[in-house]
Amino acid sequence: MVVVGAGIAGLVAARRLTQRGIDTVVVEARDGVGGRLQNGELFDDVPIDVGGQWVGPGQHRVLALLSELGLQTFPTHVAGRHLAEIGGKRVTYTGRIPRLSPRILADLGQAQWRLDRTARRIAERTDPWRDREAQHLDGQTFASWVQRTARTADGRAFFRLATQALFSAEPEDLSALWALHYIGAGGGLDSLIETDGGAQQDRVVGGTVRIAEELAAQLGPRVVLGSPVTDIAWDPAAGPAEPTGVTVSGPGTRVHAERAVIALAPTLAGRLRYSPLLPTDRDQLTQRMPMGRVIKINVAYSEPFWRTAGFSGQANSDTRPMGTVFDNCLPGDDRGVLVGFLEGRHADAAARMEPEQRRRAVLDDLAGYFGEQARAPLAYLEKDWAAEEFSRGCYGAFGTPGTLTRFGPALRAAVGPLHWAGTETARRFPGYIDGAVESGERAAEEITAALG
Amino acid sequence: MVVVGAGIAGLVAARRLTQRGIDTVVVEARDGVGGRLQNGELFDDVPIDVGGQWVGPGQHRVLALLSELGLQTFPTHVAGRHLAEIGGKRVTYTGRIPRLSPRILADLGQAQWRLDRTARRIAERTDPWRDREAQHLDGQTFASWVQRTARTADGRAFFRLATQALFSAEPEDLSALWALHYIGAGGGLDSLIETDGGAQQDRVVGGTVRIAEELAAQLGPRVVLGSPVTDIAWDPAAGPAEPTGVTVSGPGTRVHAERAVIALAPTLAGRLRYSPLLPTDRDQLTQRMPMGRVIKINVAYSEPFWRTAGFSGQANSDTRPMGTVFDNCLPGDDRGVLVGFLEGRHADAAARMEPEQRRRAVLDDLAGYFGEQARAPLAYLEKDWAAEEFSRGCYGAFGTPGTLTRFGPALRAAVGPLHWAGTETARRFPGYIDGAVESGERAAEEITAALG
Repeated sequence: MVVVGAGIAGLVAARRLTQRGIDTVVVEARDGVGGRLQNGELFDDVPIDVGGQWVGPGQHRVLALLSELGLQTFPTHVAGRHLAEIGGKRVTYTGRIPRLSPRILADLGQAQWRLDRTARRIAERTDPWRDREAQHLDGQTFASWVQRTARTADGRAFFRLATQALFSAEPEDLSALWALHYIGAGGGLDSLIETDGGAQQDRVVGGTVRIAEELAAQLGPRVVLGSPVTDIAWDPAAGPAEPTGVTVSGPGTRVHAERAVIALAPTLAGRLRYSPLLPTDRDQLTQRMPMGRVIKINVAYSEPFWRTAGFSGQANSDTRPMGTVFDNCLPGDDRGVLVGFLEGRHADAAARMEPEQRRRAVLDDLAGYFGEQARAPLAYLEKDWAAEEFSRGCYGAFGTPGTLTRFGPALRAAVGPLHWAGTETARRFPGYIDGAVESGERAAEEITAALG
Repeated sequence: MVVVGAGIAGLVAARRLTQRGIDTVVVEARDGVGGRLQNGELFDDVPIDVGGQWVGPGQHRVLALLSELGLQTFPTHVAGRHLAEIGGKRVTYTGRIPRLSPRILADLGQAQWRLDRTARRIAERTDPWRDREAQHLDGQTFASWVQRTARTADGRAFFRLATQALFSAEPEDLSALWALHYIGAGGGLDSLIETDGGAQQDRVVGGTVRIAEELAAQLGPRVVLGSPVTDIAWDPAAGPAEPTGVTVSGPGTRVHAERAVIALAPTLAGRLRYSPLLPTDRDQLTQRMPMGRVIKINVAYSEPFWRTAGFSGQANSDTRPMGTVFDNCLPGDDRGVLVGFLEGRHADAAARMEPEQRRRAVLDDLAGYFGEQARAPLAYLEKDWAAEEFSRGCYGAFGTPGTLTRFGPALRAAVGPLHWAGTETARRFPGYIDGAVESGERAAEEITAALG
């Protein structure tokens, strides 16, 4: 078999196939494995995550994989007071709930209750487009849904911030059905936005890319790097039961196999040339699932000065461009690291700035949260995922309105010898590493079943 | 210069540049010119439009071009009674307005008044994303807008039918801002949905592709067919003022020029490989402007039997898959031709059928409109534009929610030596042949200006 893409989805699929004695090659465009998981160099000596970096409770597949691969996790630092700026008010708090006014808390409570109730119902079905409200929810933006559900301006501001943090998109961009499906499939809003007890709870020692590296090490020479794929050709004449195989090629690359797993985000998969052309449902789907947009920034200091001041390092704001910040210190290292995200429209604005101007804006925000010391970093490392040729955005793709109800089944439906993987296709935790693992396992199962 | 794409936009740009003494080559993927304008063979001897086929009043640019090229038009047949099925009721009518119930007519009247008022205001500005309601309108689907504006179920059904007819998409798919921009830029809803006095008023003798063929004839060997472009490379080091040129290439094709016009729909332009990568705003835009989906069907009979029965051949239904039908007889030919469109979700369903099943469904609809004689055609010709490798849908691309306000300026903004054309970039009649002409002229002007 051949797998296109050495992100977690592709590597998991290849490993499972190989374990079953099925000869498999993985072809990867980048010079390294991991896809949206990547290490950067903030200090000369220590790698740090510049892509997806967290795992959390309920993400059983990735947790099992970490354990199987012998990789260690460590908790995100949460001790101290968190910071929140909502509706022009600055509060510090510990635990889950900022001390906002009772009126805002009541509004958030009822809106989140409605959101979670519907999101869980959608997640209980395997396919969100079969939900009884699917047409209604897919016909509106998440912004429209929030507008009707949250009754206060501050409540709506909270949902905008949460949308940016989860999707690196604006509530206006997303189908409400996609948003609810995604949140439900991740176990509800708290499960996704929380640190302790949620999807930001734990980090991987050495970086999450270690998962990909360990998988690749097991696959050895079966992983071929630096080989962008541009063309996928197969012969439909033989019929679906007996395909004559598929040829995957690019400049300097040509692999023939019985079946292929395309482990790429929908937009990237849509930019390959297929012969014969893909079914139109599948092509239309790939035209309508854009990537989110985020610039991730790690900033290093000689020490974690915010801890000394009693802060956890976790900060959120509905007005600052860098609306979400966490303590990102490295284990066994005395230096301080903060990580922040410019998401959605904030990424648009920041990407149009000169690097020096952007750095200043980021340090302004950090100083606003934690004080003037934030203006004198040891090191500064930014990663604009929309500018990555082989990602074109992060954290993941999202469904624009009408897409899931019109083309949802094409997300996973195999086409002749072509099987689709990637976190966007997952039933649980789509957009997360856990979803990527699920999708790779499913694609491998499809192929195993097809081989009889 | 080099132009990618020999649709109307690309050919108009190339002709204008050539007229100014600027040496220009057009590279086209298909074996013929015209892009979304194309002739098919319904009868052995007579060509008929299987793509865009109409021009109308107010479309000054394409009308001037037709006149300049010496091409003739003829009016779409409108004599007789039109048919409309709305809200389970079947009415026949002449002129503009079906004899629906006063309650529905009143609702349609007030909703269309609101639509046109806002659409015209948006069109009066050059850029829809600068409208004072831009954020609000771009944050919702056109379905949400219609839901609040039309008060009766039948009124909403009318707007769904109109959306399918104008965009070959569902109201759920579109940004309300895109829908209103598009309608305003086309002179209002009546201007776009009408036959006599509107955008379906006239046809071109020999087919609209004759426009492209005449332009190509003037360009002669400067138009290179059968040459799909896959790569666009330029050197940004020289600075925007003095680019060192651009190389456009594909299998067997390689053209170097000072500047390039990319005259492709956004999705197609987004699927090329650019070196250096495009600015992220532009890439994000191309991820978020999918093509509409339509199957166009011409059906021929030994005579136009509907005319004998007093029908014009124009029929609409809010329940039948083929919701829009016109008389499409050819001048000087006694045989009868009806043309119908399966649009949006109806195209989804029809594309999943076996050809024989789809043909039966189409003839069922025609028989439902015009009687049993419709079941015995002389000839049947269908064109599924989503299945066209070098179009990927029709009539045009649309903006999903949030796209115009976040990335609208990237629609037209030149990138180094790369200039963007295509009907989607037009200020007047985007999605129409007229808009394609405008966009080609604008791109040629940009290049002329850049050359000083």
